[in-house]
Amino acid sequence: MADSLPGIVTLTTDFGLSGPYVGAMKGVILSVNPRATIVDITHEVQPQRVEEGCFLLGAAWPHFPSGSVHVAVVDPGVCSERRGLAVATPAGFFVGPDNGVLSAALPDSARPRGFRGIAKPVRLPQGCVAVAISNPDYVRQPLSRTFHGRDVFAPVAAHLTLGVDIDTFGERVTSILALPLFRAVRKADGSLAGRVVQVDRFGNLVTNIRAVDIGGSDVTVEVEGAVVHGLTTTYGDGDDLVALIDSSGYLEVALPRGSAAELLDAGLDAPVTVRPVIVRLKRPQ
Amino acid sequence: MADSLPGIVTLTTDFGLSGPYVGAMKGVILSVNPRATIVDITHEVQPQRVEEGCFLLGAAWPHFPSGSVHVAVVDPGVCSERRGLAVATPAGFFVGPDNGVLSAALPDSARPRGFRGIAKPVRLPQGCVAVAISNPDYVRQPLSRTFHGRDVFAPVAAHLTLGVDIDTFGERVTSILALPLFRAVRKADGSLAGRVVQVDRFGNLVTNIRAVDIGGSDVTVEVEGAVVHGLTTTYGDGDDLVALIDSSGYLEVALPRGSAAELLDAGLDAPVTVRPVIVRLKRPQ
Amino acid sequence: MADSLPGIVTLTTDFGLSGPYVGAMKGVILSVNPRATIVDITHEVQPQRVEEGCFLLGAAWPHFPSGSVHVAVVDPGVCSERRGLAVATPAGFFVGPDNGVLSAALPDSARPRGFRGIAKPVRLPQGCVAVAISNPDYVRQPLSRTFHGRDVFAPVAAHLTLGVDIDTFGERVTSILALPLFRAVRKADGSLAGRVVQVDRFGNLVTNIRAVDIGGSDVTVEVEGAVVHGLTTTYGDGDDLVALIDSSGYLEVALPRGSAAELLDAGLDAPVTVRPVIVRLKRPQ
Repeated sequence: MADSLPGIVTLTTDFGLSGPYVGAMKGVILSVNPRATIVDITHEVQPQRVEEGCFLLGAAWPHFPSGSVHVAVVDPGVCSERRGLAVATPAGFFVGPDNGVLSAALPDSARPRGFRGIAKPVRLPQGCVAVAISNPDYVRQPLSRTFHGRDVFAPVAAHLTLGVDIDTFGERVTSILALPLFRAVRKADGSLAGRVVQVDRFGNLVTNIRAVDIGGSDVTVEVEGAVVHGLTTTYGDGDDLVALIDSSGYLEVALPRGSAAELLDAGLDAPVTVRPVIVRLKRPQ
Repeated sequence: MADSLPGIVTLTTDFGLSGPYVGAMKGVILSVNPRATIVDITHEVQPQRVEEGCFLLGAAWPHFPSGSVHVAVVDPGVCSERRGLAVATPAGFFVGPDNGVLSAALPDSARPRGFRGIAKPVRLPQGCVAVAISNPDYVRQPLSRTFHGRDVFAPVAAHLTLGVDIDTFGERVTSILALPLFRAVRKADGSLAGRVVQVDRFGNLVTNIRAVDIGGSDVTVEVEGAVVHGLTTTYGDGDDLVALIDSSGYLEVALPRGSAAELLDAGLDAPVTVRPVIVRLKRPQ
Repeated sequence: MADSLPGIVTLTTDFGLSGPYVGAMKGVILSVNPRATIVDITHEVQPQRVEEGCFLLGAAWPHFPSGSVHVAVVDPGVCSERRGLAVATPAGFFVGPDNGVLSAALPDSARPRGFRGIAKPVRLPQGCVAVAISNPDYVRQPLSRTFHGRDVFAPVAAHLTLGVDIDTFGERVTSILALPLFRAVRKADGSLAGRVVQVDRFGNLVTNIRAVDIGGSDVTVEVEGAVVHGLTTTYGDGDDLVALIDSSGYLEVALPRGSAAELLDAGLDAPVTVRPVIVRLKRPQ
């Protein structure tokens, strides 16, 4: 079985790059499997923002080979009684605290409903198994209280790349904590109420409003008092804000060669509303 | 042929490290070639500064093994009609948008002349071939409008590491856009007029003035009203600005154990002038 | 011998990630050994803070496999006459300037005493050998004056991963410069006087006061005018500062879901005092 595994471990954390933490995790992984390929998704998740970690992991992991092991450590409850999980899905393995960050591993249909909010327990869908990590043979001894990324999740991830059976690490669990989908809500008047879920390095405002829910280009997009008329297909060269569909299929508000976030003083969670301008009738094929 | 390739892909982008973009590109590369070695040159190019991306790539790639694949994505025109290129040179492969960023791959003699400015078309020198990427079998489907780093350049780069022939990706082109060399200009009075092309983390001001053009140490260096007398060979310990030749052979202005950039309030593009103090006569050998 | 080496090179520098420097070093390493696994510890050491570089390297390298090669380049004296070293210890290899940064490689007993201060020469302990790098066959020619990370330390590290004997690189030396241990001092009144040695991304204040020296939880911790009563075992959820033992066994002051560094306006080197509240008598076993 190990022969068919790609030996890849991805890391998504809020540790930043200025401390010794990420290096220590990589040392632990390579001590178990010196041939592992370790890839940073990001270590710049805002400190303890579980939802942002889940969003970023969910945007990156589907591009990795099947059988990769994805470790996510955004863990405000590290010292408390929250469980540590290893989850196997048809697409790969996911390792981290049971606080919702691993819900990026679940199909949309398994995620709880709601605009946003705290993580809720959901049943694992068919084809997925999860264990609560407890086997002391696979975690660092003595176990620190504050750095389970190094002491629990890194060694378990490394052993998964070697083909160690997931049931080795602990007892099966049937439900895990999951965050609601990052989805806009349709209001009675037909508008879509969403919010900014990521501000990228260019100052583009990435929203949780899907192209498939917008349905067309004849809309207005409202954010922080500004109104953008219609969607474009390019960032363009003008002086005005534009709205377009990004590479993940979500609505994004951008300022050509500038920062929409700065212009609008808009950040994470800023409300965004999409209103239809013209109701088009679909012609039958 | 693939056996002789080192399987290395380098990445130079303006994506930053806080989003899922770099991780997504690496996932795509590893999905095509799980044995690829991926190396970040930098992802901190100032947003959409094509010239800076070209400069940084040019400073790093010559240190990599022959046959490495260098991907550069600084791409303000991603949604427009600019071409995506794969270029083969005797030193390796270069993949990215046709906007001048790939001119780092060209020998100096093939670059357009001029102090600075926009990219101009140049003929490819002998021994180099380039193709405009168009083969849909080697790009992600559906192709996003805004993330060709993931959808076009990453998969083409990964296939190049496997020995896929460059002509597979599209039709040959005979000229590509190239930026003028980052070179100082010699004035009629014998002075060299250059500028700051990089401010490093220490606040050192890296210029585009070459040691070989300066020719000796008996010069004055002027930048933002300050005058440095003579070149030194060490950063030293004093309280005064120093001028020296950096590790790439270019003039650099530094403040010992401090930041020249802060002291002078000098940044990218600040003018720098080098004037000869004594004209030395070369003795015949 | 090379067969038993893990082929791992770690990098700890103050180069930052926005320049071409780290990429150039990796290119040099991969040119010597294309199969090397290169891991960044951090490149965000404060510019020329040798002691911080030593601290971060010391916190990370023990987690790596035996035989790994650890390169540390925090090198304010790069242009001066300081030596470049390669050190072999039972745990692995260490390569960098002889300015104290490599003292992270030494056991505590070999480090000079003192609260803090400048590096002093110490004899290498038994089982360790060091050479002053001088063999021109293993450094880049021409050697730059300002970038020995690329021209000296990277190629030597890469050759060490291939099993090249350490004596190949230069003459043996019997003493190297080492920094005092990052240790708190016990005062006559029984208190421990330490300081902040790292501010992490969460604003937690990591001190140089060891759990083993504190001995129990019945203490007060004073930092920048604030007093914390007792140690806790979790970051918790309250509004008050907490003190706890971190994952490396050192005292840390934290603000639950906030930044202790911001609240106290405390940074590197801030004094921290631990005072016993109750003297417990140990019962004989």
